[in-house]
Amino acid sequence: MKDIDTLHWVGGVEGTLWMIDQTLLPGEFREIECPDVETVWEAIKMLRVRGAPAIGVAAAYGVCVGLQKHAGDEPAAFFQRLEEVTSYLASSRPTAVNLFWAIDRMKRLAETMNDGRPAAEVFARLLDEAKAIHEEDQQMCRAIGRHGAELLGDGQGVLTHCNAGGLATSDYGTALAVFFAAAEAGKKIHVYADETRPLLQGARLTAWELMQRGIEVTVICDSMAPVVMREGRIGAVVVGADRIAANGDVANKIGTYGVALAAAAHNVPFYVAAPSSTFDLSLPSGADIPIEERDPAEITHGFGCQTAPDNVQVYNPAFDVTPAKLIKALICERGVIDPISTEHIAEVIGGAQ
Amino acid sequence: MKDIDTLHWVGGVEGTLWMIDQTLLPGEFREIECPDVETVWEAIKMLRVRGAPAIGVAAAYGVCVGLQKHAGDEPAAFFQRLEEVTSYLASSRPTAVNLFWAIDRMKRLAETMNDGRPAAEVFARLLDEAKAIHEEDQQMCRAIGRHGAELLGDGQGVLTHCNAGGLATSDYGTALAVFFAAAEAGKKIHVYADETRPLLQGARLTAWELMQRGIEVTVICDSMAPVVMREGRIGAVVVGADRIAANGDVANKIGTYGVALAAAAHNVPFYVAAPSSTFDLSLPSGADIPIEERDPAEITHGFGCQTAPDNVQVYNPAFDVTPAKLIKALICERGVIDPISTEHIAEVIGGAQ
Repeated sequence: MKDIDTLHWVGGVEGTLWMIDQTLLPGEFREIECPDVETVWEAIKMLRVRGAPAIGVAAAYGVCVGLQKHAGDEPAAFFQRLEEVTSYLASSRPTAVNLFWAIDRMKRLAETMNDGRPAAEVFARLLDEAKAIHEEDQQMCRAIGRHGAELLGDGQGVLTHCNAGGLATSDYGTALAVFFAAAEAGKKIHVYADETRPLLQGARLTAWELMQRGIEVTVICDSMAPVVMREGRIGAVVVGADRIAANGDVANKIGTYGVALAAAAHNVPFYVAAPSSTFDLSLPSGADIPIEERDPAEITHGFGCQTAPDNVQVYNPAFDVTPAKLIKALICERGVIDPISTEHIAEVIGGAQ
Repeated sequence: MKDIDTLHWVGGVEGTLWMIDQTLLPGEFREIECPDVETVWEAIKMLRVRGAPAIGVAAAYGVCVGLQKHAGDEPAAFFQRLEEVTSYLASSRPTAVNLFWAIDRMKRLAETMNDGRPAAEVFARLLDEAKAIHEEDQQMCRAIGRHGAELLGDGQGVLTHCNAGGLATSDYGTALAVFFAAAEAGKKIHVYADETRPLLQGARLTAWELMQRGIEVTVICDSMAPVVMREGRIGAVVVGADRIAANGDVANKIGTYGVALAAAAHNVPFYVAAPSSTFDLSLPSGADIPIEERDPAEITHGFGCQTAPDNVQVYNPAFDVTPAKLIKALICERGVIDPISTEHIAEVIGGAQ
């Protein structure tokens, strides 16, 4: 199966960070070199790299990019530079939780070595840590894929919404990891990808990724999913998640709830695939998950031309909440949570948070 | 309430046909003059005028436009010209049932006067007939609106899909007629308009029409309708229909079925408003309604830029079928069909077909 490197570090301490410029997909595939931290900052800011896990990995490597030319400095100057680089990177996307998580992890590690040893030694260790974060993300994707693939039959049509794919992580993604793992296990699947208005991540990114990896994919408008199910084309739905409450209610890209309702009406099992870091056990239910409203222009001026009247009112929630009762199982890197209950979730996820 | 004339004839036998160029909406409002039958043909062909009822009215006037300069001819030459004009207009949109219906009605009337009387007399009578078709269409819209408005409460949010509005008819439309009539009856309503991918008739036309007539409207992506219902914003759904089977199953713009499923899940009554000419009692159920598949480019290259990978597979059904069991009532110009059953439909519709 052809590999797509959302981002990767080429070489050792003298090496370079490369990443796919996702803003150009699917029209153009271009990898950009990141010779300085400013390039990494801009790539995160402009969504050239996107998706919580991928942003975390990019930020960890970004710390290394920013320190690389200072590996020969005096330790004090090196640590001064570390402060500058991490503050700077943290300003790229202030709401991205994984960005802060990765930067903090890099900083905490560095602090344990702030004892006068040569900066080059600290830098080498930080690069190893960034590679470890990258590797852990890959392992997480593979584990989700492995657990989820067992739930899919051979010769099945499956449906997904938005892009919970490799491009949102450093490897196979979450929902799409399930499809990739099923294909690797020899199961023949055909994916129906909701285009996912307003920003079309399904048509632009999911379809591209699946085609790159040789998996059959058909793009449909979001409004077509119910008909595709009624026509008997879909054996399972698998989507990702932005946040999962303690009771299993799932916030995900707007439109997910409608897909879940249609799946229930056609007795199609509806699965959510997400890393354990997506669970927020401090929130009792989905009603507690804040829903971001986004720019009306995403709907009225989405594709280079105006598609709604001037000054029309628009409602543009970025996410919706699918109640746990519509979800057959939650697939995370630690296994499959089925049946879904607050107790079961606490048992699988609780210990590590 | 401000009037929007989808198309209208200005003056008497020396008059002129004008119509709104709907391809320019909502960016630009422009009425085009139709000095010759070629202009009418092109307007129908290029969807400058669209919607089954409106096409019928345009074709009837189009016959007059094509004969106007021949009203002083010898009768034989005039009837020769009638043949040319009607054949020509019939070639503009070969699948539009109302086009043929209107042309046939004009021809049949003319034939009853093919007895050597002056062409000017025949022409005047044909223009009256075109105006009668126009008037009947207006009456149909008003009657649907009147019957439907009684089903809506005051202060209610309502939701519609696609454009079953005045722009698809010569007057108030079908589904939108219900909203206009409710507003005229003093009920305050707020319409949520699904943008209606792929061609965005909801965002482009429905929103524009409602704003023109001073009715509150909020545009949403199709995938947002279920959330808007769960948030308690919607008291009723009203949509149009392309074809209705003998048992009450309704073929309408793709996405209608998903809206009906979501409405059922939230106990929101789902109504279909359509003229009796939309019923096809020769089809026992919705399974017998053929569904047109349209050009993949509508999904992959919809708005001036490419939004899906080259050569990706696409499924693009233009319509879907909503089963009668999800529909609370059918609203036609003869009244409200509730409950829906084959017998009840035959009783209301059967006699006239």
